[in-house]
Amino acid sequence: MATESIPVNLITADALLQNWQGHRRLTRKTIEAFPEDKLFHFSVGGMRTFGEMALELIGMAVPLVEGVSSGQWKAFEPGNPGTKNELLLLWDAQTAQLDEKFPKIPLARFWVVEKAFGEWEMPALAMIQYAIDNEIHHRGEGYVYLRALGIQPPPFWERD
Amino acid sequence: MATESIPVNLITADALLQNWQGHRRLTRKTIEAFPEDKLFHFSVGGMRTFGEMALELIGMAVPLVEGVSSGQWKAFEPGNPGTKNELLLLWDAQTAQLDEKFPKIPLARFWVVEKAFGEWEMPALAMIQYAIDNEIHHRGEGYVYLRALGIQPPPFWERD
Repeated sequence: MATESIPVNLITADALLQNWQGHRRLTRKTIEAFPEDKLFHFSVGGMRTFGEMALELIGMAVPLVEGVSSGQWKAFEPGNPGTKNELLLLWDAQTAQLDEKFPKIPLARFWVVEKAFGEWEMPALAMIQYAIDNEIHHRGEGYVYLRALGIQPPPFWERD
Repeated sequence: MATESIPVNLITADALLQNWQGHRRLTRKTIEAFPEDKLFHFSVGGMRTFGEMALELIGMAVPLVEGVSSGQWKAFEPGNPGTKNELLLLWDAQTAQLDEKFPKIPLARFWVVEKAFGEWEMPALAMIQYAIDNEIHHRGEGYVYLRALGIQPPPFWERD
């Protein structure tokens, strides 16, 4: 294919971070859209609540960046927040940490293949993309929960 | 930030296409997982059916690549397929066309800002990422439909 003979890269680390943070702003709005009594107590089809999914995302974001940077893989234990506000506080703390830690990833580390969190063996860059895709996926699930509750989700294209 | 002083790009056009096609294989499996009588006749919370969402994706994929390549923006009218098989035939035709047309996108075109489909004004590269993210989002919604039907969706990490 033409792109194999001209392997020009398209996306910078900073663009990847900005895309991720844009998605994280939309996920934050999605958390906010849930009524307090539904965030950890409502789902469809026997699935997890959106609060539980958000905790999965929180458990991976900063630890992923730290693992890619250092080769030390350690999940974050977010404890057991029971309110929307506690969840958003955890979220916002990670937003600042990502902005601080992501730009410090040594460039060569993006291509190193490791078993992330002892489970996912792939190049670090693919693992970061996987984490972003996983967030988009779960947020899409959250949109259905909101619609099932009669609540309009935030517009998908709003990332500010 | 460090990445602004070292703007090394990470992702090739080919890696972007391979990531997209991996997602498209998973979306295809998601379409296949729907019972024939539910694909165009079941949703949650008053939303669109997964068949309708799949048609939105089909309407954008190849036309997006053609628009990025040429500057000519023209949505694809997929007609009105009424069966899973008809939908999958449209899907598979696009898979082959994407493999053929994506590598021919002139590299400089990835950074050109145009109003895609007369509606979305952003650099072509961002528009392609948006289309992939939109597919992940809607597939996540489809997963909830499947769970609500008592059907286990395909594993999110399987892209083969």
